[in-house]
Amino acid sequence: MEQSRPLDALNNARHKRVIVELKNGKQFQGSLEAFDIHINAVLKDAEEYVDGAVKRKLGTVFIRGDTIIFISPA
Amino acid sequence: MEQSRPLDALNNARHKRVIVELKNGKQFQGSLEAFDIHINAVLKDAEEYVDGAVKRKLGTVFIRGDTIIFISPA
Amino acid sequence: MEQSRPLDALNNARHKRVIVELKNGKQFQGSLEAFDIHINAVLKDAEEYVDGAVKRKLGTVFIRGDTIIFISPA
Amino acid sequence: MEQSRPLDALNNARHKRVIVELKNGKQFQGSLEAFDIHINAVLKDAEEYVDGAVKRKLGTVFIRGDTIIFISPA
Amino acid sequence: MEQSRPLDALNNARHKRVIVELKNGKQFQGSLEAFDIHINAVLKDAEEYVDGAVKRKLGTVFIRGDTIIFISPA
Amino acid sequence: MEQSRPLDALNNARHKRVIVELKNGKQFQGSLEAFDIHINAVLKDAEEYVDGAVKRKLGTVFIRGDTIIFISPA
Amino acid sequence: MEQSRPLDALNNARHKRVIVELKNGKQFQGSLEAFDIHINAVLKDAEEYVDGAVKRKLGTVFIRGDTIIFISPA
Repeated sequence: MEQSRPLDALNNARHKRVIVELKNGKQFQGSLEAFDIHINAVLKDAEEYVDGAVKRKLGTVFIRGDTIIFISPA
Repeated sequence: MEQSRPLDALNNARHKRVIVELKNGKQFQGSLEAFDIHINAVLKDAEEYVDGAVKRKLGTVFIRGDTIIFISPA
Repeated sequence: MEQSRPLDALNNARHKRVIVELKNGKQFQGSLEAFDIHINAVLKDAEEYVDGAVKRKLGTVFIRGDTIIFISPA
Repeated sequence: MEQSRPLDALNNARHKRVIVELKNGKQFQGSLEAFDIHINAVLKDAEEYVDGAVKRKLGTVFIRGDTIIFISPA
Repeated sequence: MEQSRPLDALNNARHKRVIVELKNGKQFQGSLEAFDIHINAVLKDAEEYVDGAVKRKLGTVFIRGDTIIFISPA
Repeated sequence: MEQSRPLDALNNARHKRVIVELKNGKQFQGSLEAFDIHINAVLKDAEEYVDGAVKRKLGTVFIRGDTIIFISPA
Repeated sequence: MEQSRPLDALNNARHKRVIVELKNGKQFQGSLEAFDIHINAVLKDAEEYVDGAVKRKLGTVFIRGDTIIFISPA
């Protein structure tokens, strides 16, 4: 049986709603449209959360990978 | 169907007005004229925002990619 | 006798419950499903701990390797 | 029509007066004499600004690229 | 006479008890079982120290190299 | 006319007295004896300045490039 | 005449007593036994200094290069 790789988990989450937590404490929720090996990620219908509350709606957002702590299905 | 890559989202935003949020908490708004794989980005007609208010108009600005958290259509 | 390499220790922990401590002081516990040479890691049945208490259950979580301090069997 | 790249904007600013903002909050103004792909930059007739006021005149200054947030025509 | 390289010192410490000091101020003590060129390290029978006192026993622990300040025989 | 590169400015400063400002706020002054593409630099007859006053004389000092903000002729 | 490179200065300090200052403000003094291009360094008979006073004697210590600000003959 072939062992799974970390990016497989992101691939399984494509076009699904995910939580993205950033190093500065903010969170985004949105549909994961694209990612690459640097973990640069694009969310659609994205909302920015600060302290658990929606701060603003951003539509499409490109997030630089090195600012990301984790990505998890919402 | 070919899967989209993160830089496709930036390519779609070329010559359109975007929000660029930086790691130091500042934001720029301007027209996205150029970017590269490091996410170095050039904005035209750029305005710098601090705490939600325009701090200054900068015209053309080259932003080093590693200072960027996200880029989103304005 | 061949000398072991650090990733061998992660390989031995595959599909077992691990503690993952992050640079921001948070901890995750979950089953280590995948990792790579950047130490990007995927946990299943993950729980996020803050100050020693479960903060939330996250299911599957992809953690970016550069945010990780250590990984240890739970 | 060929698309512009970020370093083109710096090339257009060569031998012109620019603002360079650093990650530590300081700013330099001077004539952009040279730069490279790391965004290492050399300013001539450079002045260092702290909190909007000239702190000192430095003549020629070599700035390490990874300390730079943005470069913009003055 | 051939000059020694830094990793030779780690090789001499293999299977011996070492102190590992981290950038966040914590320390680990344990038997150095493995390391690589990134200074990723695996300790066995590891104990975590905070402010000079044992905080918890961790058994085997994989430490990401970029969090390490120094490694020294205990 | 060939365009100058940033390291040319450092080459012109070789064996001359320079100011080196570090990310931690300290400054060195000394004669620039050597540098490389990482901006690792060696100063001779170096003095360490803290808050504008000489803190200590260090003779020869090797400074790791990634700690440097700028280098400028004294 | 061939120009010197930064690592030549470290080579000249081999087996001699050096001061190593770290990004966290600590200092080590010891005999420089080994170093590499990352500036990973090994000191023998090392002492750790905090606020100018010896905090502890460490014998041999491997210091990860990216934590080092400077190395200077003691």
